[in-house]
Amino acid sequence: MGARILWVNTVGWEAYDQPIADVLSAIKAKDTEVEVVSLSLAGRLTHVEYRAYEALTYPAIVGLARDAGQRDFDAMVVGCFYDPAVKEAREVSGRTHVIGPMLAAVQLATTVANRFSVLVTRRKCIDQMTDRIREYGAAHRLASMRDLQIGVESLQKDPNATARAIIEQGRRAIDEDGAEAILLGCTCEFGFHEEAQQILGVPVIDAVSAPFKLAEHLAGLKRQLGWVPSRVGSCEPPPEDEIDRFGLFQGPVSVGNRILLT
Amino acid sequence: MGARILWVNTVGWEAYDQPIADVLSAIKAKDTEVEVVSLSLAGRLTHVEYRAYEALTYPAIVGLARDAGQRDFDAMVVGCFYDPAVKEAREVSGRTHVIGPMLAAVQLATTVANRFSVLVTRRKCIDQMTDRIREYGAAHRLASMRDLQIGVESLQKDPNATARAIIEQGRRAIDEDGAEAILLGCTCEFGFHEEAQQILGVPVIDAVSAPFKLAEHLAGLKRQLGWVPSRVGSCEPPPEDEIDRFGLFQGPVSVGNRILLT
Amino acid sequence: MGARILWVNTVGWEAYDQPIADVLSAIKAKDTEVEVVSLSLAGRLTHVEYRAYEALTYPAIVGLARDAGQRDFDAMVVGCFYDPAVKEAREVSGRTHVIGPMLAAVQLATTVANRFSVLVTRRKCIDQMTDRIREYGAAHRLASMRDLQIGVESLQKDPNATARAIIEQGRRAIDEDGAEAILLGCTCEFGFHEEAQQILGVPVIDAVSAPFKLAEHLAGLKRQLGWVPSRVGSCEPPPEDEIDRFGLFQGPVSVGNRILLT
Amino acid sequence: MGARILWVNTVGWEAYDQPIADVLSAIKAKDTEVEVVSLSLAGRLTHVEYRAYEALTYPAIVGLARDAGQRDFDAMVVGCFYDPAVKEAREVSGRTHVIGPMLAAVQLATTVANRFSVLVTRRKCIDQMTDRIREYGAAHRLASMRDLQIGVESLQKDPNATARAIIEQGRRAIDEDGAEAILLGCTCEFGFHEEAQQILGVPVIDAVSAPFKLAEHLAGLKRQLGWVPSRVGSCEPPPEDEIDRFGLFQGPVSVGNRILLT
Amino acid sequence: MGARILWVNTVGWEAYDQPIADVLSAIKAKDTEVEVVSLSLAGRLTHVEYRAYEALTYPAIVGLARDAGQRDFDAMVVGCFYDPAVKEAREVSGRTHVIGPMLAAVQLATTVANRFSVLVTRRKCIDQMTDRIREYGAAHRLASMRDLQIGVESLQKDPNATARAIIEQGRRAIDEDGAEAILLGCTCEFGFHEEAQQILGVPVIDAVSAPFKLAEHLAGLKRQLGWVPSRVGSCEPPPEDEIDRFGLFQGPVSVGNRILLT
Amino acid sequence: MGARILWVNTVGWEAYDQPIADVLSAIKAKDTEVEVVSLSLAGRLTHVEYRAYEALTYPAIVGLARDAGQRDFDAMVVGCFYDPAVKEAREVSGRTHVIGPMLAAVQLATTVANRFSVLVTRRKCIDQMTDRIREYGAAHRLASMRDLQIGVESLQKDPNATARAIIEQGRRAIDEDGAEAILLGCTCEFGFHEEAQQILGVPVIDAVSAPFKLAEHLAGLKRQLGWVPSRVGSCEPPPEDEIDRFGLFQGPVSVGNRILLT
Repeated sequence: MGARILWVNTVGWEAYDQPIADVLSAIKAKDTEVEVVSLSLAGRLTHVEYRAYEALTYPAIVGLARDAGQRDFDAMVVGCFYDPAVKEAREVSGRTHVIGPMLAAVQLATTVANRFSVLVTRRKCIDQMTDRIREYGAAHRLASMRDLQIGVESLQKDPNATARAIIEQGRRAIDEDGAEAILLGCTCEFGFHEEAQQILGVPVIDAVSAPFKLAEHLAGLKRQLGWVPSRVGSCEPPPEDEIDRFGLFQGPVSVGNRILLT
Repeated sequence: MGARILWVNTVGWEAYDQPIADVLSAIKAKDTEVEVVSLSLAGRLTHVEYRAYEALTYPAIVGLARDAGQRDFDAMVVGCFYDPAVKEAREVSGRTHVIGPMLAAVQLATTVANRFSVLVTRRKCIDQMTDRIREYGAAHRLASMRDLQIGVESLQKDPNATARAIIEQGRRAIDEDGAEAILLGCTCEFGFHEEAQQILGVPVIDAVSAPFKLAEHLAGLKRQLGWVPSRVGSCEPPPEDEIDRFGLFQGPVSVGNRILLT
Repeated sequence: MGARILWVNTVGWEAYDQPIADVLSAIKAKDTEVEVVSLSLAGRLTHVEYRAYEALTYPAIVGLARDAGQRDFDAMVVGCFYDPAVKEAREVSGRTHVIGPMLAAVQLATTVANRFSVLVTRRKCIDQMTDRIREYGAAHRLASMRDLQIGVESLQKDPNATARAIIEQGRRAIDEDGAEAILLGCTCEFGFHEEAQQILGVPVIDAVSAPFKLAEHLAGLKRQLGWVPSRVGSCEPPPEDEIDRFGLFQGPVSVGNRILLT
Repeated sequence: MGARILWVNTVGWEAYDQPIADVLSAIKAKDTEVEVVSLSLAGRLTHVEYRAYEALTYPAIVGLARDAGQRDFDAMVVGCFYDPAVKEAREVSGRTHVIGPMLAAVQLATTVANRFSVLVTRRKCIDQMTDRIREYGAAHRLASMRDLQIGVESLQKDPNATARAIIEQGRRAIDEDGAEAILLGCTCEFGFHEEAQQILGVPVIDAVSAPFKLAEHLAGLKRQLGWVPSRVGSCEPPPEDEIDRFGLFQGPVSVGNRILLT
Repeated sequence: MGARILWVNTVGWEAYDQPIADVLSAIKAKDTEVEVVSLSLAGRLTHVEYRAYEALTYPAIVGLARDAGQRDFDAMVVGCFYDPAVKEAREVSGRTHVIGPMLAAVQLATTVANRFSVLVTRRKCIDQMTDRIREYGAAHRLASMRDLQIGVESLQKDPNATARAIIEQGRRAIDEDGAEAILLGCTCEFGFHEEAQQILGVPVIDAVSAPFKLAEHLAGLKRQLGWVPSRVGSCEPPPEDEIDRFGLFQGPVSVGNRILLT
Repeated sequence: MGARILWVNTVGWEAYDQPIADVLSAIKAKDTEVEVVSLSLAGRLTHVEYRAYEALTYPAIVGLARDAGQRDFDAMVVGCFYDPAVKEAREVSGRTHVIGPMLAAVQLATTVANRFSVLVTRRKCIDQMTDRIREYGAAHRLASMRDLQIGVESLQKDPNATARAIIEQGRRAIDEDGAEAILLGCTCEFGFHEEAQQILGVPVIDAVSAPFKLAEHLAGLKRQLGWVPSRVGSCEPPPEDEIDRFGLFQGPVSVGNRILLT
């Protein structure tokens, strides 16, 4: 039996689910099973570019992680380049790996290059993402953060404009900032990395393929080598009887939408 | 008119509201108005020692911050030493300051001493709090983190045991680790700092008084000098029309409990 | 009885005393008592932009701190944005808080914004101030240091030119460097923050109001909560009998000028 | 066709080749082809615990990387936990990934835990490995380095003693240092991780499986997504005509021993 | 003509001058000329273990540096392991190098070893010296700070006790903390390094010889290669006409005592 | 008897030997003996700008260090600004100091200035050199890295062009980046520092004089004070019997060329 991966679109909006499923379908191992979900939230968020929006998704992400653990998924991907609630979710995911796109992309970037740049949607994201990169210990590898000046929702609306912006900012990152690899700093920048890579001549790492393939890799490690999230020290999960006493995580987490790939 | 402060107990449980209100009542400026609330959550969390529990409180904290901004509070304190959702909440707080106990305690500690230790409840907290202290730029001032080996809920149940543990670990922090000030690393460690300070002979900074008095101070700065949270760059709030379109933040945030001090 | 604050102009020149007193008079709490002093030095220094000048003020600053402790001041502000001799002075200040403008401004900046820039007088200051910001653990929050290319003495001579330079460099700090708050990096840049804040649309923190209001806040903490400088470890003061044996700190410190505000 | 991996035992001694090949054989994907080689050196080094020994292996490692690129390997693993010559080798590896065990183990450790410890052979290794971990940006995740006090050559001679030492030091790392995952800091510590993991109850990551499975993963990324080492900036390889002019890399690299797994 | 070095004992007390002169006399190059001075201060400080004491020496140190520049000394050593006022003094030293013992010792330590420990007099010094080592960029090379629990003045009173303490703490630094070189962290720990080095078997770097020989070396660089302190950017000295206008540095600096070695 | 220094040109090409010998001859102390060697390598490398080239020189450098120790040299300089194999070589150098040009230049730069820039040959070098500067703890003193866009071999072919490029980039480093000293980041940038220093008005530190004079200085320290490389902890050399058993370091190291200066 192949890897079982849960992909979470961290929005309260189903429109990205099919396109993301299509991307995953094209790159997944033949026997990998994937579930793509978006969230059931109080509001219909189409993006989480703001910290305040992100915060609204935390309970659902954590709930899905617990669910994923109980349903024996091998790995869950929190599909937003901020890597929101990843550590929170991992705490209750049982034996299921939980990862975010930035973690995956940064690990890969430092394996294929010495300096990388991130192309984000808008300037708004730069400080928060830089903080996360610092937390991940890769600040000394960061050549620059550059913004495409395109909001999340517009990325896929005018793909030609997005492609042009990625090429232009990628080129400047390489020539002016010394980047040796380019990270596409939003999961909605999918579909662009191949052409950009060809034109720019450096690895262009997108925020869907990188974490998804890492998830498959971690699934293998779990099955073959028993490497799953630690459960001691700061990784200790809450006790089950306390969870019951508090009345938490009752019943399956409701999701906004669900697509299965087998 | 005095400062108007919102104190948020980040639990789904009202039992701490009155004791905290009593502490605040004793130290507030005469004309300060305080509202103490706890959260209305799916579960009745009595503490948020786990990341997964914290995550559940994020939407309510953010919602309260937006509310606080609209109701013209001068400052809101997120009453948990992890400083959960503080940056997220500040993004939508309008002209209201949003702070957490750790921020307040660390700023004060580095003003009265060169090295400080934090006495946390259990070892579980150490990694996460150390990360936050690093984010706050004070890791080089941290002499040690020491755990009392007492869970949050037990802190006030057997106050004598808690006091003894604080004295013992504080003494060791001073003698063995070189601490020059002691931080009580949980808002529920209230009521102990005075005696501990007397016995230990160093500043003992508790996680209720420090942020509350800082909130009053920030209220003054807001009123006299117009210093309120920045709203540009990474501090940009979501646009109001988008908030409406997404259907977010409709109506006042429901809270679990509310106590007013005037 | 209100707070008792000692403000030290770290120059050997009385001309700033009245203007600073006027600023403090306008912002102080009604019952706060303030003493503004400048130094009695071998030379009539009108600024301490150079390290060598600063060095000349060290004994007087330390002496005043000891004096302040003995005269029961709640807090003393060393009125220079380099924060000269602050730790040295605090060592002998007894129960009196000793702070500098940079400490106060940086703490506030990181409470209202994620990234800040400092507008200094001349390029000369940049390295030394950057070092201090690094020591304070805020280097990762520093968007840029920008120089006004105006010497300390000229700042108040042509206030219109100074205001224009602050607006221009502040604007560039925000637009080009990603600053979200602006720090005025010299105590002599007083009188400009209000207009600049209005025009620039971000918090503009000046080096007089920020430390002075922090001093009042610390005064309150001292009185209500007993939080005063630590006296153990690296904060241990010299023994009194040794001070006597060495013949140090004999008699009150002579000052260059003294203004009282009640 | 499956992944093609070159595993390099960085010693001038063939005795580890078969045991390592056995380990890899047991964990490789069915269709992965592996070549295990040891080096042909002036001396018969059985380990490279010393920097001076390591230095002697640099030309051969670099030569093998160039060879691997020309023979179209997907990835090459430099089989020593110091990660010797990895960046040097990657510079001339063409489209072949080059990785070391520490890189692989640290990336994995920070994905399954917040703090990890490394169990090294002897105290000698600690400083150099700590430096490398710092270079990899994971120093803030390092709980401790502990030495087994067993030289490289003895690890497999008395496996019971090695197993006992791993359990004992691993236990102390967890209990005293706060480790949440254990890294076995020498490729010759193979064969121990499974039992240790079971007994210690945390992920125990060995230095053979982790890099080998990462190599397979990178092979997949190369084939599916075209992600190969960058060749710009600091990743620029020497020009071919210069290599010819200097007379470098003439003919295939001679190896000490070669085992094929298909 | 040989090097001309000014050695400054940063105390208001002449008793160390002859012993230090004796040490220097024994190690100086034949043609090196040395002037050993102690300070003329308001009080007769026999040590500067406290920050407040140090502060009192700042004007004299700066004055002596200016003097040294005008009298064409090649280098001046500020003879205290805190390296007090070194940057301040260097600003006005003209073409004269100004260095401190810690700078010299740390540079040497990282040239002969990968990790070093510092043996300080009392715990009081540890935080301040650690800060300076961090400023010098060597914190990652610091194995430990250990205190001899002997005050500055007692170091030479009971040399046997001092020697024993150095051996004991040095041994523990090597065995327990991983030190590979030992720094004697007070200029008054002179006369001990040779025996300690022999017994401990690692480089033991004392705070008199290291900076003095570096001063001779810098004298050579000045004469042969023209390498003297920079005078641009943050190294810009105050303008001469301003110095005159302020009435600073009038006449030669009075010293407490002066010994010439030729 | 004077100092005995071994200078190693880390190339497989003798053409630099005489010019370097001429430079050393002009600056060495009268009684210093110098041996200048280049390497005997498989290929005739005229530079080591690439990591892969560097790697090829490692065994020879280590071998020469062992040789130098046995032949009682006081110090050996690894003559390449990357400082290749310095720590590796030092491990087996016995009582001989081993240093690189970057170490020497950075130590000096931070003694004469607060911020420095490095002028490298080509952009290729920047990342690797920045990494090394970070390892040396001087990243916070680095104003910028600037490339001359001149390959190593061309530096001495058109000295006028090189001189012009040094002046131009040095000027921009000072004016735009805030450099206060300039480091010439390649040993082949010899012969330019004097004129550049005169024109630029800041210390210009070249990569031949700085390490060579430091080597003479260390020679003195070795002889007078017994300060030689540590041999404990991570500085422990391999045991002699193991070296024999492995068949390493047999016979004197063959060099490509040798010039003696007495």
